[in-house]
Amino acid sequence: MSNLQLEDYIVATYLVHGRGGDFHKKAQGIAVGLTVGSWTDLPAERQERMKKHLGHVVSVQELGSDEQGTVKALLKIAYPTINFTPDLPAVLTSVFGKLSMDGAIKLIDLDFPAEFTKNFPGPKFGIEGVRNRLGVQNRPLLMSIFKSCIGYDTDTLAELFYQQALGGVDLVKDDEIFFDDTYAPFEKRIEACLKAADRASAETGKKVLYAANLTAPVTEIVDKAKRAVQAGANALLLNVLAYGYDVLHRLAADPEVNVPIMAHPALAGALYPSPQYGISAPVVLGKLMRLAGADLVLYPSPYGSVAMERAETLAIAEELRKPKEVLKPAFPVPSAGIHPGLVPQLYNDLGNDQVINAGGGIHGHPGGSAAGGRAFVAAIDAVIQGRTLEDAAKDSAELAKALELWGGK
Amino acid sequence: MSNLQLEDYIVATYLVHGRGGDFHKKAQGIAVGLTVGSWTDLPAERQERMKKHLGHVVSVQELGSDEQGTVKALLKIAYPTINFTPDLPAVLTSVFGKLSMDGAIKLIDLDFPAEFTKNFPGPKFGIEGVRNRLGVQNRPLLMSIFKSCIGYDTDTLAELFYQQALGGVDLVKDDEIFFDDTYAPFEKRIEACLKAADRASAETGKKVLYAANLTAPVTEIVDKAKRAVQAGANALLLNVLAYGYDVLHRLAADPEVNVPIMAHPALAGALYPSPQYGISAPVVLGKLMRLAGADLVLYPSPYGSVAMERAETLAIAEELRKPKEVLKPAFPVPSAGIHPGLVPQLYNDLGNDQVINAGGGIHGHPGGSAAGGRAFVAAIDAVIQGRTLEDAAKDSAELAKALELWGGK
Repeated sequence: MSNLQLEDYIVATYLVHGRGGDFHKKAQGIAVGLTVGSWTDLPAERQERMKKHLGHVVSVQELGSDEQGTVKALLKIAYPTINFTPDLPAVLTSVFGKLSMDGAIKLIDLDFPAEFTKNFPGPKFGIEGVRNRLGVQNRPLLMSIFKSCIGYDTDTLAELFYQQALGGVDLVKDDEIFFDDTYAPFEKRIEACLKAADRASAETGKKVLYAANLTAPVTEIVDKAKRAVQAGANALLLNVLAYGYDVLHRLAADPEVNVPIMAHPALAGALYPSPQYGISAPVVLGKLMRLAGADLVLYPSPYGSVAMERAETLAIAEELRKPKEVLKPAFPVPSAGIHPGLVPQLYNDLGNDQVINAGGGIHGHPGGSAAGGRAFVAAIDAVIQGRTLEDAAKDSAELAKALELWGGK
Repeated sequence: MSNLQLEDYIVATYLVHGRGGDFHKKAQGIAVGLTVGSWTDLPAERQERMKKHLGHVVSVQELGSDEQGTVKALLKIAYPTINFTPDLPAVLTSVFGKLSMDGAIKLIDLDFPAEFTKNFPGPKFGIEGVRNRLGVQNRPLLMSIFKSCIGYDTDTLAELFYQQALGGVDLVKDDEIFFDDTYAPFEKRIEACLKAADRASAETGKKVLYAANLTAPVTEIVDKAKRAVQAGANALLLNVLAYGYDVLHRLAADPEVNVPIMAHPALAGALYPSPQYGISAPVVLGKLMRLAGADLVLYPSPYGSVAMERAETLAIAEELRKPKEVLKPAFPVPSAGIHPGLVPQLYNDLGNDQVINAGGGIHGHPGGSAAGGRAFVAAIDAVIQGRTLEDAAKDSAELAKALELWGGK
C-alpha cells in the first residue's frame, strides 16, 4: 500500500461486527472481489493489465469486543476511480452494493479525491449564492414549513404563504408529502405563492424564497423543474432519497435549473440509525447530498421528537460546510421540534450559516403564523446582538408569548 | 374504522420498539400527521372537506416485551390513495419518509389496493413471458454471471460469454459493478455477446438471454435502454435501488423497452437487515420490485456467504410469484453460494419457477465454465426427473466432478 496514489482512489470506511481474527482476510476479499473479481489466480501478464483496476486494503483497525464476544473493526478500502463512472449509482453500487448484504457491515465514510469530485455538480448556489439571492448576510436564515398542503387549493395555500411570509421568514417550503396537487397545480401554485411573497415583501421589505416540492416521473422531472423556473420559481424542494441521488445530480448539473435546491431527508431513517447496518447519517445527509448538488439540506435536529444525537447532527453540518477544494458549502437545516427558545442553542451549535426551520414552532404561536415568524426574527436578532432571549422578549410581545408557551432561555 | 373502504387506502404495517402504553397515540399521530397534518383543531366544515384525505389507524397489536423492557408492537395505518401520485417516490416518502427517522420503526409491509396497483407497470413479461422468449417451460432456468467484467475488452467478454453459453445456461448477466465500459462499450458488447450466444446456440440448440448492465444518468437511461433494444438486447440488468424504483417503473412502462428487466439487489442490505430500522426484505426485494416492473429479481440465497434467513428468502419469492389480480408474477433468483449440489434444495424450496444462478459455482468448475454449466444442467434434469444427484452423476462426469468439489446430496 505504500506506493498507492490515493488521488486515484475512492476510500470507503466500513464498520464491521464479526468474530474477529479474519478481518484482514475479509478486507482483502472486498478489495479484490468488488473490483477485479479475482487476483491470485490471474496470469502475470493479465495481472499487469488489471493492476490499475484492483482495489486495495488501506487499513484494518480492531476496536475491541462487546460482552457477547463480537468484535468491531474499521476497514478502509481504496477503489480505483477508473472503475467508476462519475455518478453516485456507480459509486454506491460498487462500494456498498453486494457488500451491504454481507453480514453486519455499515458504510460510515467515503473519501472522494478532488479529481473525481470535479465531475459532480455540487451546490450550484451554496451558502453564499442563497444569501445573495436573499440579500441577507450576517445572520442565520429563517424558514417556515406549510402546516399542511394536502387537500388545499391554490388560493388557500397562497394565503397561508402570505401569513407565513408576513412574519419575516426568508424561506417557505412545501410539505414533502405533497404529491397529488390536483387542487393546487405546481406551476399555478408557484405563481400564486410568489405573488403572495411579493405582497408580504411590500410590507416587510424582505425577500422570500419558496421551495415548491418537485415531484414527477424521473423521466420528466428535469423538464418539470425547468418549467417551474420559467414560471418564476426561486427554489425547489426534492425528496432526494425517494428519487435517487442521481436525480439531484442531474437537476444541479442543468444550467437551466438555476435556482437553489433544498434536499429533504425523507427515507434517510431507513438507512442511518442502525449501529450495525446501513450508511451513516453524515454520508447520507451530508457528504452525498452536497456532492450531488443540494444547496440546503434538512436533517433531524437533536431537539425535537424526530431526534438524532447532537454529535451526529454536527457531523452532518460539518460535511455540508467544511471548506473543500472543489465543492461550495451547503446550508445545514436542522429540523423538527424547533421553537424560538432553541435559537441560542442552535446558534451556539452552528453559528450564522444555518437555516432555522420551524413548522409547529411558527404556526402554533398563539398569535398565528405571522406572529410566530416575528418571535423567531426577534430571537435571531437577539442572539446576533448577544442579548438573552429574556431581555429581547421585553421588546417583542411575540417572543415573550413564544417563550411562555415553549420555554427557552 | 368500521366503515373504512380499504380499496381506497394503502395499508402500511410498521414494527415499532418503544416503552409501550402510548402506541395508540403514536399510531394516531402517524395517521393524521402524515396525511392532513392536524385534525381535531380543524373547523367542522374543513373536516368535512378533508375527510377523504385523512389517514386511519387500522390496528395496534402489542407483541410483548424483551428483557430490557422494550415493547414491540405492530401498527397498521391506512393512507388514502387520493393523497398519492401513482409512483413509489410518492408512496415511500409519504408512508416512510419523515417516519423513518422517528425512533425505532421498521416498515414491514405495504398493501396496495388493486385500483391503485393498476397504475403501475408490473413485470412486462413475467415468468410466462420470459419462458416464452426462451422456449423453456417445465424446469427452473439456469443463469451464469460473468466472473468479472471490469477491465476486459469486447472480444474477451464475448469469448467468456461463449464459454458460459456453451454449458447450456439460459441467461448470462453482467457483473453489477460494471459501470465504466470504455473497453467494451454497452451496445458493442451487446452485439458481440449476442453473436457469441448464436454461436453457442448452434451447438447447444438453446437460446440464451444476455442481461447487460444498464447504467447511465437517469436523464438518459430510458433512451439508452431503447438503443440497447435496437442493438438487439434481449434482456437488461438494473441496479434498481441505486437508481431508484421510479427508474425501473419508467423502463417497464415504456413499450419500446420490450425486453425482460432483471433487478439486482445492490444496496438492499443497507435497508432490510436491522430488526429495528429500515424496510423489510420482502417489501424491498419482493413487492416493490414486482410493482415497479422487474421480470426477474436477484436476492441473497440462504446458502451462500452473503446469507439471508431461509424464511425471509421464501417470503421474497412469495411476493414475487403469488397470484395477483393485476400484476404478472416475476422470477425469483436466489443468488450467491450456489453450486450444483444445492439444486435439490433450491427445487424443494421454490419448484420450477425460479432461476438457478451461479458465478463461482460455474466458473470454478475444474473443467471450466462450460463444464460448470453442464454440471448444473445435469443437476436440474435430475431433480425434474426425480433422480438423486448421486445417481445422475453416473451419467455426467461434470456433475460428478462438481459434487466431489462442492459436496451435495
